[in-house]
Amino acid sequence: MILTNIAARAEFSEEKMGKLTLAKGGYLYAGLNCFLPGQEHKAHTHEGQDKMYVILEGSGEATVGEHASQVTTGDLVLAPSGVVHSLRNTSAANLVVLVVFAPPPSK
Amino acid sequence: MILTNIAARAEFSEEKMGKLTLAKGGYLYAGLNCFLPGQEHKAHTHEGQDKMYVILEGSGEATVGEHASQVTTGDLVLAPSGVVHSLRNTSAANLVVLVVFAPPPSK
Repeated sequence: MILTNIAARAEFSEEKMGKLTLAKGGYLYAGLNCFLPGQEHKAHTHEGQDKMYVILEGSGEATVGEHASQVTTGDLVLAPSGVVHSLRNTSAANLVVLVVFAPPPSK
Repeated sequence: MILTNIAARAEFSEEKMGKLTLAKGGYLYAGLNCFLPGQEHKAHTHEGQDKMYVILEGSGEATVGEHASQVTTGDLVLAPSGVVHSLRNTSAANLVVLVVFAPPPSK
């Protein structure tokens, strides 16, 4: 499966962070998380699943465990299984993030 | 783990495609593949492992199964377990690709 210009597929919602699926295999899931200014994915953990963010467009603040950092286009965040993490659009522009889970979500 | 500007970490070699590890969890591995003009990763398969490419810089030609396509910055390629795939830098500039494996390579 070859998908062109994945960031251009972003879908936003005033209500909450937009989510969509890009590709899924037996071992790996890829999708987009799409944040309008001020939107966030609050601190949470995934047990038995690693999660990776790659910032495709925009900037914000990521936390992984005790560590918080500004992130921008081209940065990568890895939240290993069981480690609390969050992502927030602290900028005035849209934030588009590639999200990868392994193994894929069951639902 | 938060890594800034992952594409800037690229390492090239005249001898063959450059490879380096960015981050690794129990379920997921992320690294870079770095191609000088004309370099390629020849057709191969991974059994029991999904592989994803995200083109960070440059352009080239990807194949997945019977499908071949030009790819460029911002494109995503998923080669599910057991599906033959390859990537070649067909351009005159360097090609830098984020590579994700799930599960991680054992070596």
